[in-house]
Amino acid sequence: MAQSVLPRSVQRLIDEFARLPGIGPKSASRLTFYLLRAADNQPGELATALQELKERTRLCSVCFNITEEDPCPICSDDNRDARLLCIVEEPLDVLAIERSRAYNGRYHVLHGAISPVEGIGPEDLRINELVARVAGGNFQEIILATNPTLEGESTALYLQRRLADRDVRLTRLARGLPVGGDLEYTDEITLGRAFEGRQNV
Amino acid sequence: MAQSVLPRSVQRLIDEFARLPGIGPKSASRLTFYLLRAADNQPGELATALQELKERTRLCSVCFNITEEDPCPICSDDNRDARLLCIVEEPLDVLAIERSRAYNGRYHVLHGAISPVEGIGPEDLRINELVARVAGGNFQEIILATNPTLEGESTALYLQRRLADRDVRLTRLARGLPVGGDLEYTDEITLGRAFEGRQNV
Repeated sequence: MAQSVLPRSVQRLIDEFARLPGIGPKSASRLTFYLLRAADNQPGELATALQELKERTRLCSVCFNITEEDPCPICSDDNRDARLLCIVEEPLDVLAIERSRAYNGRYHVLHGAISPVEGIGPEDLRINELVARVAGGNFQEIILATNPTLEGESTALYLQRRLADRDVRLTRLARGLPVGGDLEYTDEITLGRAFEGRQNV
Repeated sequence: MAQSVLPRSVQRLIDEFARLPGIGPKSASRLTFYLLRAADNQPGELATALQELKERTRLCSVCFNITEEDPCPICSDDNRDARLLCIVEEPLDVLAIERSRAYNGRYHVLHGAISPVEGIGPEDLRINELVARVAGGNFQEIILATNPTLEGESTALYLQRRLADRDVRLTRLARGLPVGGDLEYTDEITLGRAFEGRQNV
């Protein structure tokens, strides 16, 4: 009864919104009714942006980051240090690292991490492409910037083995207290890593 | 710098998502990167649903609910009691009442509530249409189902005055403890209303 009251086109947009992660049926309704009241062009602008998303983007054939041009702006930027390679799980990780302004080398995006539970093995990631890239390149340091999670650590360990025969320095991002965090509320593993990695002042 | 790293089409979708209520820049990024990884047709299906939303829907010329046919299915349903009229602020309120299955009459959607703070006066709502509809109709009871908020109460009071000269019973939904709620955590105004409205068992 409640369903039949809603026009089909309204119900359909609610259903589409509800398919997105983190958006439940209530939020989906709220977004839809918001758009019904919004300026006439707002739903259309969102629709155009959605349509152009897949049409215009592809993966960079060098680093596998998402890009509109191939190779991507980072891979084709001569001002970046081509001797440094940072390996990340996801394109969003590149964004986070770029925001930090702490790194000026190249990237390689794996598109996931090894996870036996989810059935994701090395062959599902851009690891063979990475090994080939390292073999053909002239990198001095490879930073294994996978997440500090079980899957991320396993992936880093696996990459370490795969790249062991290369004459290149392999590093991992430091683990420790998050800036602005509270020692009292830091979990014991992070605190343990912060002690292990303590530095002279 | 962080911006220039993101392809334009990706940034554009993030910006469009972030314009929606309750979606911040982080959620907008998450949704966009989810869609980049989703099945090829999902962004397109969402885009189509968005485009058809405004194309296919209009306001019912009788009750001003959102509909694809005019008059809407509720207004044209002869099995509903045409002597009862329920006045609500928003189309979502119709949906909530229909879900309760507690009401089987007609509706009138005001599209807002009187709010001097936000500069919304009676002339911005579908109130003149309501008065004309009541004058031309044969209603026995009009339920003022605006929200139990300051704006909703003001609007109900205003409607009460506008409809006072009509020979029709005006009612307001009961205020009291929400079902499943906890007396201990109920605010004092609701508790006061629950006492005022107490009933014999």
